Amino acid sequence: MVSIKDVAKTAGVSPQTVSNYINNPGIVKPNTREIVARAIESLGYIPNASARRLRMRRSNTIAIGIAPVNYSRVYDRLLHALVTEADAHGIRVILYKIDSKRDEIRQFASLTAGSDVDAFVLTDTTHDDPRIGWLNEHQQTFVLFGRPWGVPDMYDVRIPWVDVDGRNGVSNMVRYLILHGRKNIGFIGWPDFSGTGMDRYLGWKETMLEARMVPESELNDLHIATEDTLNDGRRACVSLLARRPDIDAIVCVSDTIATGAVMALPSGSNVVATGFDNTMSSQSLGFSTIDQPLQACAKEIVRIIQEELGTIVAEEGDNDGKHMLLAPSIVIR
Amino acid sequence: MVSIKDVAKTAGVSPQTVSNYINNPGIVKPNTREIVARAIESLGYIPNASARRLRMRRSNTIAIGIAPVNYSRVYDRLLHALVTEADAHGIRVILYKIDSKRDEIRQFASLTAGSDVDAFVLTDTTHDDPRIGWLNEHQQTFVLFGRPWGVPDMYDVRIPWVDVDGRNGVSNMVRYLILHGRKNIGFIGWPDFSGTGMDRYLGWKETMLEARMVPESELNDLHIATEDTLNDGRRACVSLLARRPDIDAIVCVSDTIATGAVMALPSGSNVVATGFDNTMSSQSLGFSTIDQPLQACAKEIVRIIQEELGTIVAEEGDNDGKHMLLAPSIVIR
Repeated sequence: MVSIKDVAKTAGVSPQTVSNYINNPGIVKPNTREIVARAIESLGYIPNASARRLRMRRSNTIAIGIAPVNYSRVYDRLLHALVTEADAHGIRVILYKIDSKRDEIRQFASLTAGSDVDAFVLTDTTHDDPRIGWLNEHQQTFVLFGRPWGVPDMYDVRIPWVDVDGRNGVSNMVRYLILHGRKNIGFIGWPDFSGTGMDRYLGWKETMLEARMVPESELNDLHIATEDTLNDGRRACVSLLARRPDIDAIVCVSDTIATGAVMALPSGSNVVATGFDNTMSSQSLGFSTIDQPLQACAKEIVRIIQEELGTIVAEEGDNDGKHMLLAPSIVIR
Repeated sequence: MVSIKDVAKTAGVSPQTVSNYINNPGIVKPNTREIVARAIESLGYIPNASARRLRMRRSNTIAIGIAPVNYSRVYDRLLHALVTEADAHGIRVILYKIDSKRDEIRQFASLTAGSDVDAFVLTDTTHDDPRIGWLNEHQQTFVLFGRPWGVPDMYDVRIPWVDVDGRNGVSNMVRYLILHGRKNIGFIGWPDFSGTGMDRYLGWKETMLEARMVPESELNDLHIATEDTLNDGRRACVSLLARRPDIDAIVCVSDTIATGAVMALPSGSNVVATGFDNTMSSQSLGFSTIDQPLQACAKEIVRIIQEELGTIVAEEGDNDGKHMLLAPSIVIR
């Protein structure tokens, strides 16, 4: 087994210089780097990554939970983007299984016990998310994908997050519909007025009121809430049209619900339905939708982690750089 | 920092026993385990995982490549299943980015250099896959998801694989259609007669010949090949029906092509189209399809890895246990 000392001897430098070359090449002069690199190559020296990590006390690894079944296409898209972005910065991504938020905390404990992970990426944020408290208490670095709904201060520097501005996306979709002659625009949302659902609902409500499309008293008539399945979307669409036959557009909180709604529309109907997430369904059925900028999200997540770990220095800016709300785009079909 | 010696002292056992407790608890008596566990807890001892790995020369980590964009829903489903299955065996899953097969070999080199990874799971197998040679040459443990198309002996014990029997799935779909009165059953396949595409094509061809639905000379008329996009599926469906207006069913090599075909069918048409992969599109458009047993695949992949690493002992059986072809199911809608 070739050791660091063998490399130092061959290169004619000190073992410390070889160690610097491996762990912190920036502080080694270019000429010396060249000489050490050649010695490493000629001897076939392989720095053991586990050993290196022990010395560095940094794993260059981030962890993200993954559910047993892929409920959300957005999650899958984010994961692909995240690994690509992390790889560009020499960071590895490790996956841990999550069945529930409680299960996730058990995984935190196990992954941090061995200093195997530098930081966590949390998805599927909910009200009073127990994970945030645990990670802060244990001084672990993390970034949320999604906002920390329900915390007293959403811009708390100890809770960095990256999210997509769903309210803005829905608002832009409603504006587009109004500017293209639609007047009685309904909304199918989720029953749980959770953070994300409420956010998208407000995007519809505020834009409708702003444009004075209907009196505020009629808004309730145009809104219905349902679970996120095709069949529920189908039923919600039928109910909404029965209640208000004058509806000419339906903005849906998700592509799944929009797919059900599109399928429920009578053939030849002039009503348009729109979705959220730009899935294959919206492409195949040809309805308009809202697309989340997941590569940009992955970029911000990795940047924040690096800043939190001190790997890179935060740029000065108006924003504190720890709370990034990115605008989605509307996709018109 | 609490050391293993402190734990040994508190527990009144030798440091070796504590080490055994951590690395190989099975060989420590239950009573002793209890005592050591209590000492570890009272002292707050944390075995450093990196240090443990150095001692064990095993990382309990498997790696799987992930593309920057999720082209394949099957990949995403497998990944969720794989992490769940691995977690049940205390194995972690690390992701590495892949842009190409060449890029993947670069990642192998980096991940194996530090003995950070025990085994690789390879997806998207192709003819003359360069990855297999590299891994065998470097004595790395791996399992393919997909068959090693083009190798001289597909049942070579040095090339373990798990795959889904697409030929069997398509054959069962064609049989179902025949048993439900369809006669002129067309097939839209992929132009590249790659392993997977050829396999599914043969499932259609053989079943049609076996049932003597059409003379062999007419089979070419009923078959068309196209790229895997909605629009290509649409065009292929139109061409096929123009060529053979008597077609009453179209079996497609993928759900994407089937979605295009379904959309291209004239309204009121009695022709049915079927897909492959049981995606959201097949659910929303309501066409029949073929479902891959990805959880079962993940189970076999993890089992083979454990057997290859010697973590578990292979069961005796007719099959060598290293080449698993699992049957898909047909989903009738």
